Amino acid sequence: MTELDVVVQEIAEEIAARSDRGSVAHYIPELAKVDPAGFGLVVIDADGHVAAGGDADTAFSIQSISKVFTLTLALGKIGDRLWQRVGREPSGSPFNSIVQLEFERGIPRNPFINAGAIAVTDVILSGHQPREALGEILRFMRFLTGDPTIAIDQAVAASEQRTGFRNAALANYMKSFGVLDNPVDYTLGVYFHHCAIAMSCRQLALAGRYLAHSGRNPSTGHSVVSPGRARRINAVMLTCGHYDGSGEFAYRVGLPGKSGVGGGVLAIAPGKASIAAWSPGLDASGNSHLGRVALEALSKRMGWSIFGV
Amino acid sequence: MTELDVVVQEIAEEIAARSDRGSVAHYIPELAKVDPAGFGLVVIDADGHVAAGGDADTAFSIQSISKVFTLTLALGKIGDRLWQRVGREPSGSPFNSIVQLEFERGIPRNPFINAGAIAVTDVILSGHQPREALGEILRFMRFLTGDPTIAIDQAVAASEQRTGFRNAALANYMKSFGVLDNPVDYTLGVYFHHCAIAMSCRQLALAGRYLAHSGRNPSTGHSVVSPGRARRINAVMLTCGHYDGSGEFAYRVGLPGKSGVGGGVLAIAPGKASIAAWSPGLDASGNSHLGRVALEALSKRMGWSIFGV
Amino acid sequence: MTELDVVVQEIAEEIAARSDRGSVAHYIPELAKVDPAGFGLVVIDADGHVAAGGDADTAFSIQSISKVFTLTLALGKIGDRLWQRVGREPSGSPFNSIVQLEFERGIPRNPFINAGAIAVTDVILSGHQPREALGEILRFMRFLTGDPTIAIDQAVAASEQRTGFRNAALANYMKSFGVLDNPVDYTLGVYFHHCAIAMSCRQLALAGRYLAHSGRNPSTGHSVVSPGRARRINAVMLTCGHYDGSGEFAYRVGLPGKSGVGGGVLAIAPGKASIAAWSPGLDASGNSHLGRVALEALSKRMGWSIFGV
Amino acid sequence: MTELDVVVQEIAEEIAARSDRGSVAHYIPELAKVDPAGFGLVVIDADGHVAAGGDADTAFSIQSISKVFTLTLALGKIGDRLWQRVGREPSGSPFNSIVQLEFERGIPRNPFINAGAIAVTDVILSGHQPREALGEILRFMRFLTGDPTIAIDQAVAASEQRTGFRNAALANYMKSFGVLDNPVDYTLGVYFHHCAIAMSCRQLALAGRYLAHSGRNPSTGHSVVSPGRARRINAVMLTCGHYDGSGEFAYRVGLPGKSGVGGGVLAIAPGKASIAAWSPGLDASGNSHLGRVALEALSKRMGWSIFGV
Repeated sequence: MTELDVVVQEIAEEIAARSDRGSVAHYIPELAKVDPAGFGLVVIDADGHVAAGGDADTAFSIQSISKVFTLTLALGKIGDRLWQRVGREPSGSPFNSIVQLEFERGIPRNPFINAGAIAVTDVILSGHQPREALGEILRFMRFLTGDPTIAIDQAVAASEQRTGFRNAALANYMKSFGVLDNPVDYTLGVYFHHCAIAMSCRQLALAGRYLAHSGRNPSTGHSVVSPGRARRINAVMLTCGHYDGSGEFAYRVGLPGKSGVGGGVLAIAPGKASIAAWSPGLDASGNSHLGRVALEALSKRMGWSIFGV
Repeated sequence: MTELDVVVQEIAEEIAARSDRGSVAHYIPELAKVDPAGFGLVVIDADGHVAAGGDADTAFSIQSISKVFTLTLALGKIGDRLWQRVGREPSGSPFNSIVQLEFERGIPRNPFINAGAIAVTDVILSGHQPREALGEILRFMRFLTGDPTIAIDQAVAASEQRTGFRNAALANYMKSFGVLDNPVDYTLGVYFHHCAIAMSCRQLALAGRYLAHSGRNPSTGHSVVSPGRARRINAVMLTCGHYDGSGEFAYRVGLPGKSGVGGGVLAIAPGKASIAAWSPGLDASGNSHLGRVALEALSKRMGWSIFGV
Repeated sequence: MTELDVVVQEIAEEIAARSDRGSVAHYIPELAKVDPAGFGLVVIDADGHVAAGGDADTAFSIQSISKVFTLTLALGKIGDRLWQRVGREPSGSPFNSIVQLEFERGIPRNPFINAGAIAVTDVILSGHQPREALGEILRFMRFLTGDPTIAIDQAVAASEQRTGFRNAALANYMKSFGVLDNPVDYTLGVYFHHCAIAMSCRQLALAGRYLAHSGRNPSTGHSVVSPGRARRINAVMLTCGHYDGSGEFAYRVGLPGKSGVGGGVLAIAPGKASIAAWSPGLDASGNSHLGRVALEALSKRMGWSIFGV
Repeated sequence: MTELDVVVQEIAEEIAARSDRGSVAHYIPELAKVDPAGFGLVVIDADGHVAAGGDADTAFSIQSISKVFTLTLALGKIGDRLWQRVGREPSGSPFNSIVQLEFERGIPRNPFINAGAIAVTDVILSGHQPREALGEILRFMRFLTGDPTIAIDQAVAASEQRTGFRNAALANYMKSFGVLDNPVDYTLGVYFHHCAIAMSCRQLALAGRYLAHSGRNPSTGHSVVSPGRARRINAVMLTCGHYDGSGEFAYRVGLPGKSGVGGGVLAIAPGKASIAAWSPGLDASGNSHLGRVALEALSKRMGWSIFGV
C-alpha cells in the first residue's frame, strides 16, 4: 500500500463521516433522483498505479466534465481557429448566464460555460449528422479509457432535452449572431447527449491521464494532444473549470479541474496524477461540495498544488 | 553563464527587435511620458542566481503590482477575515469596472481589480494615519528586497491623485455600502501612493522571491508568509492578476503573475524562480504587451509552466 | 378641406422632399426588400373624418404595432392578472435585449419589448391551437377596422420564422422560468404571424380609434375596452412604445405611440384622433425615422401634445 | 366650494384613514426623523383657485423634486446643448444606479436620476461659486412662488453631505468621463443643498404652475419658459420622473410627475392644474406611496389623465 493509497483511504473515510453534503441538482429531473450519500475518489499516478476510495466504480452523469473532452476534440478538428468562436477568459458569471453573451455579441467567454460548450459541440457536429458526432465523442471516451462499455444514459439525455430551455435560449442567441453553423436542435441534441455520458470515477481518472502527462497516456503510449495543448487545456480548466467558483477552487485545491452538475470533478496534477472525485451534492456555484473538499485534502497531503509546496 | 542566462539574453534581444510595442498608459499623465522602447527582464532562481536582460535597473512605476504586496500585508494583519470584504473570483470585467460592485453590493470581486485593492488598502490603513500606513508599506518593500532606496515617485502619485476620479468613484461606492472603514480621501491617498512606488525589474524580482519559495526568501531565510498563504496568493494571481486578460496570461504563460499599467509584470514559477519583466506598452486589457511576450518565451524555453511540461 | 387635411397634405409634401430616410430593417430578409421611399400618413378625427396623405393605402408589415392589439386581447382574456407575467416599466434597453430578463428572472419589463409581447401572445394562445389563436387575432383586426381583407403576409412570417433566433432565445429563456405556458414553437409561431399582418395607414388608423375615444369606436359605437383600460394602454404606449427611443418620442411628439420595424407608427391623440404614419427607414433605436418626423410636425401644428399646448 | 375642493377634501380624509403608509427614507438620517403620518394635497387650477387638504402648509424636504427646477434653469442657461451631457430616456434602473453610466460612458440616462441631476447642477454651477449657484436656485424658487421665505434646511443638507457616498461615486464617475466641469465637491455641495430645500405643498403647487400653463404663470403673467419647453419638461417628467416606478405612475395616475424621497410629488395636469402631494412613506421604488394613491384618486375623479377621459 503506497502513501497515495493511504491518503485516498483516509479521505474517503473522512468524507463518509461528514454531514454537509450540499444539494443534488434539481433542475434536471433525472439527476434529482441520485442518492446524495454517494462518494468516490480515484487517483492514477504517472506509473499507472490506481488508488481508489469509496464508490470508485459507480457510474454517474459526467455532465459538464464532458466539455473537457469535446474541447480536446474540437481543437483537434479546427485547431486554434476555435478561439474565434469562443473566448478563454473566466466569465465572472454563473454557468448558464446569457448576459455576457449580449455584451460580447454572441461569443461565449470560454468553452466551459454552457454557451461556450454548445459552441464547441457545434464545431464537432459540422459536416456530420448528430448521430455521427455523438458516435465520435463516445469512441473518443472509449479510446481514452480503453473501456468499450462507456455509454450515454438515455434517460438523463431525454430529461435534459425536455427541460433544457435555458440552454436552448443560449443556443438560439448564439445562432442569432451566426456563432453556430448547424441547426440549433441538432447542436443541442448532441450537447445534451454528451453531457449525459455515464462514467465512474475510475473511468474518468483514466480518461484524464493525457492531461496530466504532456498530452500522452504514459501506460499505453497513446498520444492524444501535443504537450503545449495539454498545458493550455489545463490552464483553461484552472481559470474557467468551476464557473463562478473557479477562483475558489484554484485558491483551495490548487489544481486544474472541471466539475459537472452530476457531482463529478476531474482534476489534474500535472506530471503527477489524474484524479476523479464524485459526490452528488452541489454548492451554491453548482460544483460538487464534498468533491472539492476531498480534492483540497488530497492536494494538501500530497503536496500537489501547482502554486507551490 | 547558465542556461537561464542564455535564455534571458536571447529573449531580451528578441524583444529589442520587435516593433509591436502596445500603447503606453495615457490616463495617468505622468506615466504617458515614459519611453515605450524600454524593456527589462530579471529572473532570480532558487539559488539566488540573478539572470538579467535589458534595462534591468531602470526604475518604473509598479502600479498594480503593489497590490500583491498590500494583499500580503493585509492578510498578515487580519488573516482570512479579509475575504469578508473582498472576494477571490475573477471578475470578467476591466480593472476599473463599477458594474460588478452594484450587483454584489459593494464587495469587490477580488483584491487585484482596483476596487478590491482599495478595500485592501483600507484594511492596512485602519488604526493608522495615512503617512504611517504608507511607511509600513515602504518598509515592507525595503525588507523584501533588502534595498532601503525604494521610494515613491511623488510626481506620479500627485498625477494619479489629480486624475483618479474613477478610483474615487469606486471608493465612494464601496463606502456607501460600508465596505471601507476610513475616510475615502485617506484610503485613496494611501492607494495612489503605493501604486506610485518606483522599482526596477531587479528589485521587483527580489521582492517576489517569497512567493516562489513557500513564503520564505531562500537566500536570507526570512519567512514572510506561511507556505499555504504563498500558494493561495499565487492562486489569486493566476486567476485574477491580469484583469480580463487573466485567462489569456494563464493560457499563454502558465505562471501566476501580476501586471501594472506602468508596464511591469511580476511572475512566479513556484519552487523555481521569481521573475520581473517590464515594457511600458500595454495591450487592450491594460497589461504589458511585450512583458507578456517575454514571459511566454521564458516559460516555454525553461519548461516552467505550472500546467505541465 | 379642413385644417387637418391641409396639415396632412403639407406634411406629406415635406416628407417627400427629405433625403434623410434612415435604414430599412435588414435582419428580416423579406422586410429588407421594401422601397425606402414609401410614406403614408392617415389621421381620423373624432367625427370619423379621414385626412390622408402619401401612400395611405399601401399595405406594410405592421410588426410590433400588432403588440398593441394583442395586449388589448390578452387583457380582455385574463384582465390585470396579465401584469403578473409582464411588467409595465420602460426597459432602458433595445427591443431584443435579454439582459433584463436575467436580472428579473424571466419577467419581461413591459408588453412592448419582444420578450413581453411573446409572453402576451402566450396568454392569447392558451387553451387554443396556434391556428385558432391567429384566427382570433385576425378577426379582432377585421372587427376593429371593419375590413375583412386584412391578412397575414405569409412570406414575411416565414422569413421571420427562419431567422428569428433571437426571439427564440427570449422565448426559451422565459420558458426556463416558467413564464410561458405553451410549447415555445407554438407561441413563437403565433407571434411571428401576428407581427406579419399587413395593413395600410388607413386601416391602422381605423384600428386604433378605440384608444383615442375612451375604448369605443365613435363611428360604429362598438365598445372595445373600458375607458380606464384605454387610458392605461395609452400610458404603456407612451412610456414603452418605442423601445429605448420612448423618451425621445414622448419628448418630440408628445403622443402615445407604438412603432414597428416595418416602419409603421400608430399614435393616439386622446379625445382627438387616431393616427397612422409609415416610412420604412429606421433610426438607431429601430423606430421609423420619418414617421416620427411626420408625427412631430402633426402634433405641433395641430396642438395635440398631451403635455400642453 | 368647488367640485375640486370637495374632491381634495374627500381624498385627504380617505388618506388619513389608511394604514398602508410605506417606509420613511432611512438612508438620509435627518429625513428618517419625519413623522410618517403627515399628508398634504394642494391643487391650483388655471384660475388660480387653491384647493388644499391635510397638512397643506407643512414644509418638507423637496429632495428630487428640485430637479425639475434645476432642469428648467439649466435649459435656460445653455438650451438644448444640455442634452449632450444628459439623455432623456427612462433608465429602467433605480435612482442611484451606476451601471448604466458605465455602459453609456458617463452620460446619465436622464436629468431625473441622481447622476443626471448632478450633471444638470454642474451646468448651473459653471462660472459661479457654489454659494452663488445656490443663491440663483433659491431666487428662482422664490420667484416662482412669490414667497421670499423659501429656504434650505441646513440640517438635511449637512446630513446628506455626510452620508452621500453613492452620489459622490456617481459624480466622480462622471468626472472621470469629463461630463462634469467643476470640482466634484463643489457640484455635490450645490446638489445636496438644493435637494434640501424645504417647501410646503402650497408652495410647491405654486412653483409648478408654469408647467401646467404653457410655460407661464397665468396669475402673475410671468413667463418662465416657452410653451414648447414646458411641454418637453412635462414629457421628461412623465417618462422619467419616478425612477423605475415611472411606468407605474403613468399607468395609474396618467399625469407628468416628479417625486422626492422626502415624500413629496409634484404633478402637472396640462392646461388644468398644478398639484403637490406629500406623504413621507415610500414604496419600493423610493416614491411616496400615499402621494401616488392620492394623485391616482384625484386624476380619476377630475378626469385629468392625459391619456384620455
